[in-house]
Amino acid sequence: MIKPQTLKGFRDFLPLEARKRQYVINTLKKVFEQFGFEPLETPVLEYEEILTGKYGEEGDKLMYRFEDLGQRRVAMRYDQTVPLARVVAQYQNQIALPFKRYQISPVWRAENTQKGRYRELVQCDIDTVGTDSALADAEVIQAALSAYQKLGFKNFKILLNDRDIFSKTFIDYPAGLLPSLITAIDKLNKIGEQGVIDELINRNNQNPESAKKLLDSIREAKPTQRILDILAILDQMKIDGTYIDFTPTLARGMNYYTGLIFEIETPDYPHGSIGGGGRYNNLIGLFTKKQIPAVGFALGFDRTLEAMEQLNLFPDKIALSTTTVLVTIFTSNLEYKSIEICSRLRSEGISTEIYLGEIKEKNPLEKQLKYADQKGIPFAIIIGGEEIKENKLILKNLKTHEQKKLTLDEIIDILTL
Amino acid sequence: MIKPQTLKGFRDFLPLEARKRQYVINTLKKVFEQFGFEPLETPVLEYEEILTGKYGEEGDKLMYRFEDLGQRRVAMRYDQTVPLARVVAQYQNQIALPFKRYQISPVWRAENTQKGRYRELVQCDIDTVGTDSALADAEVIQAALSAYQKLGFKNFKILLNDRDIFSKTFIDYPAGLLPSLITAIDKLNKIGEQGVIDELINRNNQNPESAKKLLDSIREAKPTQRILDILAILDQMKIDGTYIDFTPTLARGMNYYTGLIFEIETPDYPHGSIGGGGRYNNLIGLFTKKQIPAVGFALGFDRTLEAMEQLNLFPDKIALSTTTVLVTIFTSNLEYKSIEICSRLRSEGISTEIYLGEIKEKNPLEKQLKYADQKGIPFAIIIGGEEIKENKLILKNLKTHEQKKLTLDEIIDILTL
Repeated sequence: MIKPQTLKGFRDFLPLEARKRQYVINTLKKVFEQFGFEPLETPVLEYEEILTGKYGEEGDKLMYRFEDLGQRRVAMRYDQTVPLARVVAQYQNQIALPFKRYQISPVWRAENTQKGRYRELVQCDIDTVGTDSALADAEVIQAALSAYQKLGFKNFKILLNDRDIFSKTFIDYPAGLLPSLITAIDKLNKIGEQGVIDELINRNNQNPESAKKLLDSIREAKPTQRILDILAILDQMKIDGTYIDFTPTLARGMNYYTGLIFEIETPDYPHGSIGGGGRYNNLIGLFTKKQIPAVGFALGFDRTLEAMEQLNLFPDKIALSTTTVLVTIFTSNLEYKSIEICSRLRSEGISTEIYLGEIKEKNPLEKQLKYADQKGIPFAIIIGGEEIKENKLILKNLKTHEQKKLTLDEIIDILTL
Repeated sequence: MIKPQTLKGFRDFLPLEARKRQYVINTLKKVFEQFGFEPLETPVLEYEEILTGKYGEEGDKLMYRFEDLGQRRVAMRYDQTVPLARVVAQYQNQIALPFKRYQISPVWRAENTQKGRYRELVQCDIDTVGTDSALADAEVIQAALSAYQKLGFKNFKILLNDRDIFSKTFIDYPAGLLPSLITAIDKLNKIGEQGVIDELINRNNQNPESAKKLLDSIREAKPTQRILDILAILDQMKIDGTYIDFTPTLARGMNYYTGLIFEIETPDYPHGSIGGGGRYNNLIGLFTKKQIPAVGFALGFDRTLEAMEQLNLFPDKIALSTTTVLVTIFTSNLEYKSIEICSRLRSEGISTEIYLGEIKEKNPLEKQLKYADQKGIPFAIIIGGEEIKENKLILKNLKTHEQKKLTLDEIIDILTL
């Protein structure tokens, strides 16, 4: 016997959880399409060289990579931004710029699962490619804000920053050091001020005093002109300013950001941001001669779901089965009647199950109604010998336990409401 | 520069193709839910031992397998049936039987791409677990038939058979030989009668005459009682019998089938079946002490899409962008007005783009309208200095080139229709 088990950090989603996930995905698709983003799909496997070296210190370490049967080095999707950059470069003649796309699919990262992290996680991305305008930046932020609002979030902040603040503050350092300095600042919330100062000292042999000064000068930085432009547009969009916070210490991990960066935080998920994004004007240029500017946002699906769970943001109907009614079978010689009714209900567009388990001779309905109840099916139809003679059926509401004798047409009217 | 390219057998789907795929997936989800199947999600990676040895001769050869960073042997999803079997065994206490689930997700097979095959392909599965009833068999066939009908197919056949016919015909052979004999019969359409006879001779040292007799006796086999029961139920379901064909030479490749097997064929896709399924009563027992019977169906997504393409079965709106209207920007000092209108349209639930490219001073609209046209956006709003004074806007239909001067409220009424 083979032990039935999943790999560490990988999960199954049984119907209730799967329904919740589909609800969030459908809500997001609708928001993204309202903002003019269109669907794109890319493969799970890419040539390794497409993905490596794009994600900062951790990326190459945590990436799932292997040699395929044709001796090619391949890697599993690590985010959706690098594959987008590859797509834009590869199909330049087919894609009209600005190109606005969304993609909702899993990515794989061999994270330390002891920290409650998953190794297979869904990301929900929107990106606008082919324009460097502040309007595009603002629009991505507006769409992100709208997404969380549509999911029911009220209490959250969008932290904004501009990577230019770092390049200006670190102007006296060798340019090659910038990514590691940014990585240090990025840990401010995790390791605190002294931790960051220690990292700054270690990473470039600085003395403690100047390291502290450096951190202070970032803390006190004023918004760049670009940030001011974005804030002005957000204002024209009539966005409630209390959602937005300029945060000069916001750093973000990924190597590829060049200008605007932002993260969404909510006290309802205290373990980090539930989404984030930014501008990456140099990434696509790795795959093509021409630099093509871009800006995007990724919603952290699992964290967002966790926060929604805590806040009870799922509609009540999620707890119910997608099936509306169970047609029970009273005795095997009435089975044909149940089959007929079931087919009719389905042809009317009503999600219908017919009981497929064994029919017990004694008390045949007990097990069937319990089955419906366990699955969260709200109604059951009972076909008794008596009622058939009158051409009627019994419709039972499994929540209120109320039951009524009705014709099939009357039942269809009730269930299609 | 890194060459932007996809791996052989792997594909990107730009918005038009992605919309087609989403249309098919949404249609299928609706059908599957109408039949009482509920969503399930399983991971892309499984322990290798969960997947190997379940798929017949080709399976282990074509499976994507590797060692992960924790030195575990892992494999990528090869179908959705074996993971389902694992799930049922793993969550026996949480899952009420009969369990009916659907799953729509990609699987990976290192197929020979010269035959026009893909290595990443979506499967759409429904399965009923925990009952051996002929009603469950018939229901899966009914759901499969309904799925193709809802997608617009008219001209197709469901070929039915029962694996018992093989075990009875091959009763004098060692039981261990059965899978390879079935593999031989499965090739009848590809290698013809003589080819199958040759395989039968090679595989068990038979003389040509008895091999031919064997094939003939399969060809002339009568339907089993189980097949007759299923046909009777399909009849009670009021299914048009011309869709159904008992085909005793139908074999199917997978090792795990035990009773009913079926395949869907259409002359509109001549390169093989566009879907199929069957009963597998011994598969779940590999993962748990208790045998749990099951029956299911998988729709071949890519082949089905290809056939739909040929038959022109996609609705016209698929050719259009998911975006309804482009708000153009006439001059940069009117940008704020465009932003305002765009936000209002989105808040009314209208999928709206605002032009994010560069605004040329000379003839600013030409490029913007061309952009909308290229993307298949059906309407554009033009905000001219003159019209603004009257509090009006121009709505342009990009197909008919008709344009009207209207208030924003009038435009909203037209676009929400």
